[in-house]
Amino acid sequence: MLTSSMEDYLEKIYELMKDKGYARVSDIASSLSVQPSSVTKMIQKLDEKKLVTYEKYRGIVLTPRGEQLGKLMKQRHKMLEEFLRILGVSEETIQNDVEGIEHHVSPSTMDALNNLVLFFHQNQECLDEFNEFCIELEELKQVDRDKK
Amino acid sequence: MLTSSMEDYLEKIYELMKDKGYARVSDIASSLSVQPSSVTKMIQKLDEKKLVTYEKYRGIVLTPRGEQLGKLMKQRHKMLEEFLRILGVSEETIQNDVEGIEHHVSPSTMDALNNLVLFFHQNQECLDEFNEFCIELEELKQVDRDKK
Ligand SMILES: [Mn+2]
Ligand SMILES: [Mn+2]
Repeated sequence: MLTSSMEDYLEKIYELMKDKGYARVSDIASSLSVQPSSVTKMIQKLDEKKLVTYEKYRGIVLTPRGEQLGKLMKQRHKMLEEFLRILGVSEETIQNDVEGIEHHVSPSTMDALNNLVLFFHQNQECLDEFNEFCIELEELKQVDRDKK
Repeated sequence: MLTSSMEDYLEKIYELMKDKGYARVSDIASSLSVQPSSVTKMIQKLDEKKLVTYEKYRGIVLTPRGEQLGKLMKQRHKMLEEFLRILGVSEETIQNDVEGIEHHVSPSTMDALNNLVLFFHQNQECLDEFNEFCIELEELKQVDRDKK
């Protein structure tokens, strides 16, 4: 079992390796807003779980299993963002909620949400209907507020 | 700010009061699978936050603010269950994921999800299209697996 924190680290290390080709302790620390000493401790834990290794010249490296999991965390994060964006949630709320929600979304729930995102992308008329529905609901709520 | 655990307690106390008219320490403990001593400690914290009070004959009672929050927690929980049920997620996974996800769903994300649930309830043809879409996706995945 991975903790939420381990999942965040794997996602971040995967992201840094894709973007820059390497993941330094200082980069991980600043992007997760934690102390370098916390990064070092976590790297040891992930090493024990055989998800990262430390190579003399390359530094922190994900094992194949670690890379697979990091990629999955990244995909899950992006998918949840995309899903809430479709629903019209504000970017600030998306960033905030996804950081918490993601750790509790099991693979089968992720598949189901992914299906819904794909569905709305490929069925614009349903998405249009949903957006109209939201506007109407908002108008009804406004009428209700005006009454009070 | 409420912790996830405080949210769970408020939801449970609200539920017990609705169902039975009262919430005893032993009932709260057994329904949350915790020790009675943990319940007592948490009741003290919720008391300090003016969300519950202890009345001599009635026992644990939610304050108006506590009741409002407990009701909100309960609604959020039920709405998330309903949402995942619409997506076709299994009941076991729903129970498991919702217990974690709920604590990270902000009011505006909850509103958006609620809109989606209402939309699918009132637009059966979109829900039918979504279900067909899922079946087709599943068939495509099966073809893919058979190729390997
Ligand atoms: Mn994340
Ligand atoms: Mn709950």
